[in-house]
Amino acid sequence: MRLYDSTIPSGNAYKVHLLLSLLGHRYETKELDILATPSETRRPEFLKINPNGRIPVLQLNDGSVLPESNAILYYLADGTRYLPSTQLGRAQAMQWMFFEQYSHEPYVAVLKYGTYWGGLDKCRPEDIERWKTRGQAALDVMERHLAGRGYFVDRFSIADIALYAYTHGAEPVGFGVGPAVRAWLARVAAQPGHVPIKRDPTGRAP
Amino acid sequence: MRLYDSTIPSGNAYKVHLLLSLLGHRYETKELDILATPSETRRPEFLKINPNGRIPVLQLNDGSVLPESNAILYYLADGTRYLPSTQLGRAQAMQWMFFEQYSHEPYVAVLKYGTYWGGLDKCRPEDIERWKTRGQAALDVMERHLAGRGYFVDRFSIADIALYAYTHGAEPVGFGVGPAVRAWLARVAAQPGHVPIKRDPTGRAP
Repeated sequence: MRLYDSTIPSGNAYKVHLLLSLLGHRYETKELDILATPSETRRPEFLKINPNGRIPVLQLNDGSVLPESNAILYYLADGTRYLPSTQLGRAQAMQWMFFEQYSHEPYVAVLKYGTYWGGLDKCRPEDIERWKTRGQAALDVMERHLAGRGYFVDRFSIADIALYAYTHGAEPVGFGVGPAVRAWLARVAAQPGHVPIKRDPTGRAP
Repeated sequence: MRLYDSTIPSGNAYKVHLLLSLLGHRYETKELDILATPSETRRPEFLKINPNGRIPVLQLNDGSVLPESNAILYYLADGTRYLPSTQLGRAQAMQWMFFEQYSHEPYVAVLKYGTYWGGLDKCRPEDIERWKTRGQAALDVMERHLAGRGYFVDRFSIADIALYAYTHGAEPVGFGVGPAVRAWLARVAAQPGHVPIKRDPTGRAP
């Protein structure tokens, strides 16, 4: 398998690296420069692979390609312990993964990108305020859900992997993280096979 | 089962109505006024049901609740013809549902809401321009994918239901729809058991 990633660390690509590591799969990585003009993900060669112009994309051994980080997690987890075994449990994992892409990533990840690579000074103050408010609201929903729970659904699953990717980097860019989220971050980091997100080759992120 | 919906027509709730109709399930509907101040979805009673303060939510017969429209589609389709039968097919259905929530709904649905109920005159011109540009980009990705295909994945599935909800109302709010998308919209509308989105009780939407 081949994973299309970016040269700078992407939380969405990191989700896939993390699950591939937990599963012990072998794969190769192809990195694209998203800071180039135009981004290497928006050039004709890559648009043939993903017409939506985004990483990550997983290329399978038969040549088929799968975009969307959470769809890749679902594909890789199918038939493993990382996808809940009941119909409701699987749907609840999906619930938290859609929450991640709709209510969390567009604010927490976007503020992270702006802070390290995009240049917050070029952003409109109202946009920055919106990212902070809505990102914090998502983290607060997570805090309430995790109070008294070990993981998002019964036991450790792809829902935790999806939400861990950008949550573990939220505090350094100014978000508040409560005690339940903090304890959950530690539980995810303690999973056998856990790997950290890669280093930033530009040196702008810690 | 009980479906929490809004009084004005919501594409996200319509997805669930459509699949429930295709499956022939009986259910009741509870409507919340999202135009009220504060929205009925952000009041304490409803935040106990969905701490993220959004409809739709499906309440199951055992009392458990499931938010996130596409997670509800996945729950209801599990074990039926509306979820693809192969591992890759299921993941491709998820791919298009995550595409819908990340690259399509935040622009097409938001412009629709602003046009009919939110008041575009109160929005910033840069925001309106962004919704138009990115929403059109999503519709163009769909057009390229559907050229020569009947449905998003092999045969009619929850991926088509998720994308139909806001795409069939895109042209009236100013988006361009190509011939492949137009033919696909007609194929979805011809499914046995298809129901249209409900009428707008405020009379502002057509």
